[in-house]
Amino acid sequence: MLSDKINLKDKFSKFTKQWSPRVIAEMNDYQFKIAKIKGEFVWHEHKDTDETFIVIEGEMTIKLRTGEVKLSQGEMFVVPKGVEHKPCAEKECKILVVEPRGVVNTGEAGGKFTMYEDIWI
Amino acid sequence: MLSDKINLKDKFSKFTKQWSPRVIAEMNDYQFKIAKIKGEFVWHEHKDTDETFIVIEGEMTIKLRTGEVKLSQGEMFVVPKGVEHKPCAEKECKILVVEPRGVVNTGEAGGKFTMYEDIWI
Repeated sequence: MLSDKINLKDKFSKFTKQWSPRVIAEMNDYQFKIAKIKGEFVWHEHKDTDETFIVIEGEMTIKLRTGEVKLSQGEMFVVPKGVEHKPCAEKECKILVVEPRGVVNTGEAGGKFTMYEDIWI
Repeated sequence: MLSDKINLKDKFSKFTKQWSPRVIAEMNDYQFKIAKIKGEFVWHEHKDTDETFIVIEGEMTIKLRTGEVKLSQGEMFVVPKGVEHKPCAEKECKILVVEPRGVVNTGEAGGKFTMYEDIWI
C-alpha cells in the first residue's frame, strides 16, 4: 500500500520533546527523521555511515574537531562517517536528518540523549 | 577533506534547465539532487529502489497508476520501488530528490528526458 504524503510542518506539530528524533519516512533502508534541537548535544561519531542534516527552520551549528558548520533554514551538511560532531542550537531549531535505519543518535557515546528505538510520528 | 555546507537556494540559482537534476551532495552511496520541473515527465519506474521527492518551492503532482499525490512546499513523498510514477508541475517547481547513486531519472523508459551522467553543481 502506498503511504500518504508527508507534511513536515504537520509532523513537527505533533511533538515537543527536544533531541528526540521522530521517524517520518523510510526509503529502502534509510530513514528520514525530524528533530527539534536546542542547546548542546554530545560529541559522537557514526563509524559506519555518513549522516545528513537539513535545517527546516531556525539555525544550528555542527561543531567538528576541526571547526564548525553554521546552518540556517534551507541549508544542509553531510557529516562523513567517522567524523566526530556535536550538533548545537542557541534557539530551538527544526531539522531533518537522513541516515540508514538503525543508526543510534549518539553513536557509541551513550548518555541521556541516547534513543535506542525508533519513534514514528 | 570536509565539504562545505550546501545552500539550496544558492544551488538552484546556478542552473535554469528543467527536468535536469543536479547532484548537490552524497551520503554513503546515496545522492541528493535538485531539479526544476515544469510540465509532464514520462511514466517510469525504478525496479530496484525507492525514490524520495521533497518540494522546496512550488507545487508538483506525482501521478501514479492508482491515483495522484499533490505536493506543496515542505511536503515529501517516497515512491516505492517498482511503482510507476509520472512527476508533473503546472508552474515551475523546485524539488529535492534523494535516491541511490546510479539511478537513471527515467528508469528504463528512456526518451528525451533521460540523463545518463551525473551533473554536479
